[in-house]
Amino acid sequence: MRKLSDSNVVFLQKAIIQDDFWSPYIALVRDVVVPYQWEALNDRIEGTEPSHAIRNFKIAAGLEQGEFYGMVFQDSDVSKWLEAVGYLLELGPDPELEAVADDIVETIAKAQQEDGYLNTYFTLKEPEGRWTNLAECHELYCAGHLIEAAVAYYRATGKDRILNVACRLADCIDDVFGPEEGKINGYDGHQEIELALVKLYHATQHDKYLELARFFLDERGKLPHFYDEEFRKRNGRTHFPGLKMTADKFYSQAHLPVRQQTTAEGHAVRVVYMCSGMADVALETKDPDLLAACRALWSNIVSKRMYITGAIGSMSYGESFTLDYDLPSGTAYAETCASIGLIFFAHRMLKIEPKSEYADVLERALYNTVIGGMSRDGKHFFYVNPLEVWPEGIRKNKNYEHVKVERQQWFGCACCPPNIARLLASLSTYVYSVKDNTAYTHLYIGSEARLELAGQTVSLIQRSELPWEGVVRFEVAMQRTSRFTLALRIPDWSGSPDIRVNGKAVVVADYQEINGYIHVDREWSSGDIVHLVLPMPINYMKGNPLIRETIGKVAIQRGPMVYCIEEADNGPHLHQLFLEQGAGADGRLEFEQEMLGGLLTLAMPANRIVEEGWGDRLYKANADTKVEKTTALFIPYFAWANRGAGEMRVWVSGSDSGQGGKRMGQSRQSTADS
Amino acid sequence: MRKLSDSNVVFLQKAIIQDDFWSPYIALVRDVVVPYQWEALNDRIEGTEPSHAIRNFKIAAGLEQGEFYGMVFQDSDVSKWLEAVGYLLELGPDPELEAVADDIVETIAKAQQEDGYLNTYFTLKEPEGRWTNLAECHELYCAGHLIEAAVAYYRATGKDRILNVACRLADCIDDVFGPEEGKINGYDGHQEIELALVKLYHATQHDKYLELARFFLDERGKLPHFYDEEFRKRNGRTHFPGLKMTADKFYSQAHLPVRQQTTAEGHAVRVVYMCSGMADVALETKDPDLLAACRALWSNIVSKRMYITGAIGSMSYGESFTLDYDLPSGTAYAETCASIGLIFFAHRMLKIEPKSEYADVLERALYNTVIGGMSRDGKHFFYVNPLEVWPEGIRKNKNYEHVKVERQQWFGCACCPPNIARLLASLSTYVYSVKDNTAYTHLYIGSEARLELAGQTVSLIQRSELPWEGVVRFEVAMQRTSRFTLALRIPDWSGSPDIRVNGKAVVVADYQEINGYIHVDREWSSGDIVHLVLPMPINYMKGNPLIRETIGKVAIQRGPMVYCIEEADNGPHLHQLFLEQGAGADGRLEFEQEMLGGLLTLAMPANRIVEEGWGDRLYKANADTKVEKTTALFIPYFAWANRGAGEMRVWVSGSDSGQGGKRMGQSRQSTADS
Repeated sequence: MRKLSDSNVVFLQKAIIQDDFWSPYIALVRDVVVPYQWEALNDRIEGTEPSHAIRNFKIAAGLEQGEFYGMVFQDSDVSKWLEAVGYLLELGPDPELEAVADDIVETIAKAQQEDGYLNTYFTLKEPEGRWTNLAECHELYCAGHLIEAAVAYYRATGKDRILNVACRLADCIDDVFGPEEGKINGYDGHQEIELALVKLYHATQHDKYLELARFFLDERGKLPHFYDEEFRKRNGRTHFPGLKMTADKFYSQAHLPVRQQTTAEGHAVRVVYMCSGMADVALETKDPDLLAACRALWSNIVSKRMYITGAIGSMSYGESFTLDYDLPSGTAYAETCASIGLIFFAHRMLKIEPKSEYADVLERALYNTVIGGMSRDGKHFFYVNPLEVWPEGIRKNKNYEHVKVERQQWFGCACCPPNIARLLASLSTYVYSVKDNTAYTHLYIGSEARLELAGQTVSLIQRSELPWEGVVRFEVAMQRTSRFTLALRIPDWSGSPDIRVNGKAVVVADYQEINGYIHVDREWSSGDIVHLVLPMPINYMKGNPLIRETIGKVAIQRGPMVYCIEEADNGPHLHQLFLEQGAGADGRLEFEQEMLGGLLTLAMPANRIVEEGWGDRLYKANADTKVEKTTALFIPYFAWANRGAGEMRVWVSGSDSGQGGKRMGQSRQSTADS
Repeated sequence: MRKLSDSNVVFLQKAIIQDDFWSPYIALVRDVVVPYQWEALNDRIEGTEPSHAIRNFKIAAGLEQGEFYGMVFQDSDVSKWLEAVGYLLELGPDPELEAVADDIVETIAKAQQEDGYLNTYFTLKEPEGRWTNLAECHELYCAGHLIEAAVAYYRATGKDRILNVACRLADCIDDVFGPEEGKINGYDGHQEIELALVKLYHATQHDKYLELARFFLDERGKLPHFYDEEFRKRNGRTHFPGLKMTADKFYSQAHLPVRQQTTAEGHAVRVVYMCSGMADVALETKDPDLLAACRALWSNIVSKRMYITGAIGSMSYGESFTLDYDLPSGTAYAETCASIGLIFFAHRMLKIEPKSEYADVLERALYNTVIGGMSRDGKHFFYVNPLEVWPEGIRKNKNYEHVKVERQQWFGCACCPPNIARLLASLSTYVYSVKDNTAYTHLYIGSEARLELAGQTVSLIQRSELPWEGVVRFEVAMQRTSRFTLALRIPDWSGSPDIRVNGKAVVVADYQEINGYIHVDREWSSGDIVHLVLPMPINYMKGNPLIRETIGKVAIQRGPMVYCIEEADNGPHLHQLFLEQGAGADGRLEFEQEMLGGLLTLAMPANRIVEEGWGDRLYKANADTKVEKTTALFIPYFAWANRGAGEMRVWVSGSDSGQGGKRMGQSRQSTADS
């Protein structure tokens, strides 16, 4: 791990990650993912859908001849890549990468129009169509990603070339959109510009960008409806005829003003990008209604519409949320980008109010769906992250058409791969936050951070055995002894932790546990050591009884890792496995060094339904179900689909529902007796 | 019930139905369904999708001005209606109905072209397009339905006007299609003409119609592929762009020659119509390969791809079969027409070889999906017959877009309603068959039949308490004492029956039970009485362990009736009910006279998962599942959705899988011990 300069660390309150589990990921992003994606964006990966994204910029810049190709939002793939490069350069210098990036920055700058407009699709293909189809055409979405990239690249390198491009673009947008007479009272179909403008506001301190972000949020869902008006103005021209983006206001969360939204509707990525922007603006403006809407949407997502893997989006059609407690495993959409967006949202809520539920969800999405979305070689990706697959069924039943059983090299719509890259490259920003002289530890990831506390820079050196053991050690280093609070998150997967400061047990008083963090408030001196042991049992997870999919089923989780069973370990017909529960049914842990870079597997007592005696019969009356004892081998969900196409499931049949199991019998009895 | 003339009964070996359960249905078809459908075909039902089917014929006949409207196969709705009228007129005279039918016969005759061609879509809309798009455009399918109607109407009335129209049409087809040079070596995308031509062969004894039926069957799936050739010839014009009917050969069972097909693929109705035609031709021609293919396809359907309700078609896309053991309850297509087609197929297989498995499936489809497909008022219909509904989920999750939670007045594609009408109007033909001096009783439906046995006409008067009790009584009436066999089907839902002849118990020897029928071979005299008591326990049905959907679940069946639970009786969240099983868990039967014309309901001991203690939590670790004892009220499946939109499920969670339940614990123990 390279060393970053002090000034950068302080500026960003970043940590340098030094962690057995995560450092290889960040190295992978630097050494493989970002270079690989550069090749993909330049159409140099054989056998994949072409990207054409760099070519589009070069053509728009007048450097090459040709036509635009790709999705209307193809530009954003380049921006996300550049943003990831920015984060990598913050971690340490890389002149070669920086030269490549500077080059594409120049190309982007040349592709920018006189008036600051920048979008290769419209410049090359529909120059007259600018700002005429916000509902469908992602102009502001692409602008948002360009701005995010610009801010990241500027912060890492200090070079303002791309930041100036971003400002000119934002100024162009500010000239066109706004409440004033003659400006468009509209907003983008795909939220992104809002959170980007807040970043630009932070980088430049220009209030107008924050104002514009708030404008876009507040316009959404107003009546008469902007989508209908622009639709009429462009004589009903439609870019994506299959999706009813203009007519279906729920699809892009334009069915109600954002402050009135209480349920997560429509396209899942858009929801969480919107919420991130709302939280940003709420934090800056202290707007209580906006914060209330953030809390309501958060609550609806995480308490009614989120998969146990931290995935969101229950339906392929519209890549969308559906309704409360509708969480089908096999037909799940569960887009990688949506979990990344959920992390963005959680991160912002943590800044507003440090509550462990935000970090719990952030961690859940990160350790399961996000890293499950990329192979360990950094070159294969999932867009859709189902919780159950039956490859033969997926091939033949069109309800599963969107599901891939193995990670893909690239996608025609390639939003997810660069999104993973930019998230992992910036992972260090998620570990801590500081508020009111308190350092909050959100993630237990080995790292060295410099935090501004008690008027000085405090180094916090974390060593962590997560995700496999709940053993964490902090060492404090600072110039002078001073008082501040170290707030240690107690994850939802853990029991009561053991905390020792300099070897002495901390007896935690009730008042010390605030919103899921144990506050250790004391005079700290350099060299102080905190030992934290988080119990990490094998958790038998149940779904809320209102979830149809999970009734009678169990999922296994240990620490932040949700587990799954795969055909490679357990043979086919995984639905025939019933997990034993209750006393004596504990699993056996085994660390498999050879498996995918090292995995902790769990061997769990189970019963398997035996098929014998059925012959050609499809249904039988009053047949005893025959079972045999077996062991179900679980691996972490993120590691699935690395050994060829095969069945997988997260939710496994359990044996303690209804009449069954001893414990259940007793519990039912007592209900009946009372 | 009206009396039919002797000559008709003998000719058709029909029975007159006199049955508490079925007579009201047949009266309903005569008094309500057929008159209602006539109104629908004439666009006189308010608030429904227009049919225009009669108008199309009138316009083609030159009687009215206007344009064709409707599906390319709209004509077939009129034909199916006319066929049903034919069956009704066989049951007894109805001059008024016959006058209406004669009138439409005249219109149809006038719509026929000079050369015998008859299809209002092509005549009115694409006169140059005749026979250019067999893969998609249902010309021969419509011809087949016209022929079926003609044969039925001719048999009932003796009037040959429509039969002559049918023969001219068949001759026109015979001129255009065939193996000879210059003729089209093709076949229809939607099978139907094959079985219709065999009916025309029976009615006319013209061999060429049987020959043509065989030709169409044998052409299917040959290479080079006819669909591709006609596609090229018409320069790629496509009628249904969404469905890839030309490219996807499986969709219309054109992926292989029919004799090589062993699995049911593609559009479910087409499969069973094709199989019916194959069985017809196999019976006539004694073709062993064709019969083997029929048996293979039958076996694949009923032992791997059929719902417990006798429904088929697991997927909305293409209204199709998917793969073995893929039988999702909620997203099922399970088209009413497909179960009707399965009955046609079963009926023909029974003619070839009387095996009770054919009648078992016939009965299963009839008592569950087919009559479930129509409301008790005869004016509302299901096209899709799911085994599980969650109305709120259906409204918001597009995977269920094809499912309706209440029966509809009519459909833009209205194949199902007239199909139910023609099936019920001809139900009497399914009760018996005679072969080798043996009368086979396939269905236990109160009726009076005249069968040709031992050289004379034997009257068989059946009284049946089905479907609610397994008590059946036969009385024999005949001119002179003679020897023949009465073969009594032992249904798959029954245990060993009690059989008495003239009050004396029949001890059944092993050799008497042949293919599921108990053969009572004796000298019969007029006045002989047979009492048959079929035990009718409440059957706890399990699905084959290879079915993912039904694992750990139970369905309740009693007699031929599959049961379901509904929200109206059990409240919402039906997934929270777990059925008790094993000793002492027997249900309580109650006949509810007031419910939908009288239903036997079953009150079954169950446990309900209690939601308490969950609050806003979506997932919990190591939570005990709390249950409370309750009673689940089951009603017959066919009667669902008559009390407003609500949840329904056929497969209910069971409590004896895996580790649970006493019986299971023991059975597992013994496996472990041995």
